[in-house]
Amino acid sequence: MNEAKTRATDLGGAALPGLEDVRDAAARIAPYAVVTPVLRSAALDALAGAALHFKCENLQRGGAFKFRGACNAVWSLSAAEAARGVVTHSSGNHGNALALAAATRGIAAHVVVPEGAVQAKLDAIERAGAILHRCAPTTAAREAKAAEVQAATGAVLVHPYADARVIAGQGTLALELLAQAGPLEAVVAPVGGGGLIAGVAIAGHGVQPALAVHGAEPAGADEAARSLARGERVTDFVPDTLCDGLRGTLGVPNFAALRAHGIAITTVTDAECIAAMRLLWRELKLVVEVSSATVLAAVLKARGRFAGQRVGLVLTGGNVDLDALPW
Amino acid sequence: MNEAKTRATDLGGAALPGLEDVRDAAARIAPYAVVTPVLRSAALDALAGAALHFKCENLQRGGAFKFRGACNAVWSLSAAEAARGVVTHSSGNHGNALALAAATRGIAAHVVVPEGAVQAKLDAIERAGAILHRCAPTTAAREAKAAEVQAATGAVLVHPYADARVIAGQGTLALELLAQAGPLEAVVAPVGGGGLIAGVAIAGHGVQPALAVHGAEPAGADEAARSLARGERVTDFVPDTLCDGLRGTLGVPNFAALRAHGIAITTVTDAECIAAMRLLWRELKLVVEVSSATVLAAVLKARGRFAGQRVGLVLTGGNVDLDALPW
Repeated sequence: MNEAKTRATDLGGAALPGLEDVRDAAARIAPYAVVTPVLRSAALDALAGAALHFKCENLQRGGAFKFRGACNAVWSLSAAEAARGVVTHSSGNHGNALALAAATRGIAAHVVVPEGAVQAKLDAIERAGAILHRCAPTTAAREAKAAEVQAATGAVLVHPYADARVIAGQGTLALELLAQAGPLEAVVAPVGGGGLIAGVAIAGHGVQPALAVHGAEPAGADEAARSLARGERVTDFVPDTLCDGLRGTLGVPNFAALRAHGIAITTVTDAECIAAMRLLWRELKLVVEVSSATVLAAVLKARGRFAGQRVGLVLTGGNVDLDALPW
Repeated sequence: MNEAKTRATDLGGAALPGLEDVRDAAARIAPYAVVTPVLRSAALDALAGAALHFKCENLQRGGAFKFRGACNAVWSLSAAEAARGVVTHSSGNHGNALALAAATRGIAAHVVVPEGAVQAKLDAIERAGAILHRCAPTTAAREAKAAEVQAATGAVLVHPYADARVIAGQGTLALELLAQAGPLEAVVAPVGGGGLIAGVAIAGHGVQPALAVHGAEPAGADEAARSLARGERVTDFVPDTLCDGLRGTLGVPNFAALRAHGIAITTVTDAECIAAMRLLWRELKLVVEVSSATVLAAVLKARGRFAGQRVGLVLTGGNVDLDALPW
């Protein structure tokens, strides 16, 4: 295989990793990340009319796949870069993942969080050892605060999804899934900012070119589906969905990856996600977030597309408020 | 190893399997049972001050370890016995497990269920293909109805726990756990009728004689602890605990196994179990029953006993009513 080709760092004008970058990431994170199990359910197979293989990233360190990308970014830094620490803006799973990843290297993590973020999530990020920086709950304020922290500390910005190191790290789960489950006809992953689906497509097509890579997106934050339909990135939208992990705006390199890899997207309603979430809890005995349930909701909705196929579904995370279940 | 010794079918006057029976069971159920994962949690390790290895039988077929024993019993039958089917009395996980196990061999399963049993559980047993036989909710009525079914059909009785085939099947999870986790100082399993703990002790001590085998029992159904203290089986008790999987009365061979294997028991309150259940859901991202949480509750309560040790904990099942969580 031509390494220059598989390390495609320029695709559609945006920085994207290649298969070899994903393989490097897998080696880099192996000492720290969990090789999460792939679970099956006869009851869910019967419902879907397909052979479903669930990649359980809710069982990943920190309770979400985000640790993979954050860990790859942290361990990609030179010693001099690492000494200055890392910074990101995220009050969700990526902030927590970056804090945990920085701790594995013993370096500082700065996490910019908006006023009004869920206290339990902030507590978790602090417990993981990160330094919190509060700001107003606007995109401009977050970016300004992150730039301020960068200027003051020299910390390296690790964006939640528009970052080749992060995308390569997320892609490692697809390599694992295909090794654990054997060849699949299709893989379905949620689409938020697009870091996961880009990594899955790059890694999945790298080892199995005919693999169909599908996205699942909440109807209340369907800018990826609309971006593909329009042929350009849609950024003027206000998310309205319970799927709090999928409210981010599709990134530039992420959009390029969606187009380059011919990814189709199925949109699902919050009600469909809640029903699918219950099914996952009941049949797989797993605590998964509502954002994760998009993939099962999509497979049940687009039944014809997956009928009789061997399908991989990425369960992205399990960080749920047990006192506020959505049913 | 002397096979005659390890197939100890008479111990304290009661039929118990030996290590070789457990090994035979493992081979017998391998085509049908799930090799469940062993999960870890840094947060729970820190809380317990020990290295906890959770054997996730909530991810077993049917959502509970019970499938192992039922499957071993079903596949231990001669062709002539199998042709007449199997029967048990249980409206819980064992009834469902026997139905699923019988289906793997294509034989009839009769399950005697008391009036007033939870409809969702009965529906699951019927979906698995079993024939339900209803009776009054008393032990006498259950045994009479089971005897009636046996007389009419010739079906073989598979008791939920006082059965050497069932005990050997449950023991297979300890063989797996020790192979997956490596040597452990202690294993903790819940005690109800005692089928699981007997199998775990026989298998665990068979491969690792110095292993400490601990029981965890709800304070509201602590007849195993009282039986050990008194030196004879306590049977005159009325269970009063949320741990619905652990209300059964310690069986005769099971009591013999507890004594022969020097098993210590820690009793835990329902409140301690609910707190531990929440911890398991939050940190391991697993749906587990309150009965399963007894093991973590016991390890947190008897902290001194396990400090610094490598400990295995059996998470027995995940069949939970998601609309009636106990917190």
